[in-house]
Parts: sequence; structure tokens; C-alpha cells
Amino acid sequence: MITALDHIAIAVPDLDAAIKRFMEDFGLTYEGTEIVEAAKTTTAFFPLPPTSIELVHPLNGEGPIAGYLEKRGGGIHHLCFRTDNIEEDVERLRAKGYQFIGDKPTPGAHGSTVIFIHPKSCGGVLIELSQPADAH
Amino acid sequence: MITALDHIAIAVPDLDAAIKRFMEDFGLTYEGTEIVEAAKTTTAFFPLPPTSIELVHPLNGEGPIAGYLEKRGGGIHHLCFRTDNIEEDVERLRAKGYQFIGDKPTPGAHGSTVIFIHPKSCGGVLIELSQPADAH
Repeated sequence: MITALDHIAIAVPDLDAAIKRFMEDFGLTYEGTEIVEAAKTTTAFFPLPPTSIELVHPLNGEGPIAGYLEKRGGGIHHLCFRTDNIEEDVERLRAKGYQFIGDKPTPGAHGSTVIFIHPKSCGGVLIELSQPADAH
Repeated sequence: MITALDHIAIAVPDLDAAIKRFMEDFGLTYEGTEIVEAAKTTTAFFPLPPTSIELVHPLNGEGPIAGYLEKRGGGIHHLCFRTDNIEEDVERLRAKGYQFIGDKPTPGAHGSTVIFIHPKSCGGVLIELSQPADAH
């Protein structure tokens, strides 16, 4: 029986740079690395508290997800980090050289405020920052 | 400050079929949907217990991750579900029409046993099933 989402795997060209990014820039706890001979990989682990999967489908066939589906035909679209102060995190990450899609946060699901980091600044991973409604 | 991974977003061409897949085939709890006008999406939520991010990097420049990086240049590679009986889940999902990469499970990280569902059977999402060492 399937009992849990064990992990989300991110392919990285530079492991040390990526470990630094997820520890220092996104504040995750780094647990260590393991060589997995059978998969021919070196793997770095970052344990996470409870999260969720969100399926996203275009509303009335419009918007960025419609464009993604047309080009790619379905798939893992982005990871979203929760923040308690989105303005502060945008400023902090901009100062580190991260580029954002759009100038400032916009309304997201459940009354949240959201902004996306450009995947070009993030090793090809589209990352959303989201401040929940109750954290404003 | 970044406080959590809020969610993993999966773009889906058929929302009802995808909700059914993640509920019935992968056993997740379906929390409901929400229309997010600002993002032009309909979004379906599946809360998840604690999980982890794994960065994966080719060992000695070889293997499937090396091929992925060459083609795509880094990005979210797959989601992995944990199972307490991988043989049973492979049989159950095969009977539903899922195709697997390779005939049978092979060794993964931390002494686990793993197998991948072909993304073509899964709306473009590469899904790994993993049975931890202590569940054998």
C-alpha cells in the first residue's frame, strides 16, 4: 500500500551549489548525502514538514498553465515555499541575484499572496513563494 | 522567512481524471478544489505527511540523471511514493494499465527497493515507488 510521498527529486548539475541554495537561500535542513551506486547518483537529503500536492488545471482554457500544457503536455510544474513575510524574502533573494517573474506579489489560492522565481535563477526549477492569508 | 514547502504543483490536462488517479491509484486524501481567478486555474489539494527534497546528481557523470541534465539542464525530476509492499503495488497498478520502467524493482537509496512508473502512463509525471529497507 502507498503510505506517503517519500521525496521530491530535483536533478542538479552542481551538487554543492544546489545544497548551498536549498540550505542558505530556502532555509531547509540538510541531512547529508548518499552515493546510490545502483542509480548512479549522489543524493542530498532535505527532510520537510507536512506539505501538499496541488493539481493545477487551466480555468476556461486560459493562463500560464494552459501554455505549459500546450508545450509540455502535463507534468510537475513548480515547488512552492511558504513564507511569513514575502516582501522581506523577495528583497533578500533579489539581493542574492534571484530574478522574479513580475515586479511584485499577486493573489494566489486560499487568499495567499504569491510570486515566482524565474527558473533560470534556480537551476531550471520554477519556485513559488507564498504568504498565507493569515500571515499578513 | 521561508517556513515550509507549501506544495508541489502538477499541471494536468484532465482535472477529474487526475483527481481520480491521485486519490484511487496513489491513495492520497483529496481535500477539495478551488478556483484561483488571479492564476487562471482550478486547483485540487491533496495534503501530505512529512516528506523530503532530494537533490540528485550523476555519479561519475553517468546514468539516467546525466542524460536528463544533458537534455534538460536541471529541474524537478520525479516524485517518489513510499510503499510497504512494492510487489503488491506494482501488480495492482499494472492491472490498472500503468507501465513500469524495467521489469522489477531494483536497489535505491538507504537500502530501499524502487521502481519507476513510465511518465506516459502518468500524465507526464515520472513517479517512483520505494519500499524502505525496514519494510521488507
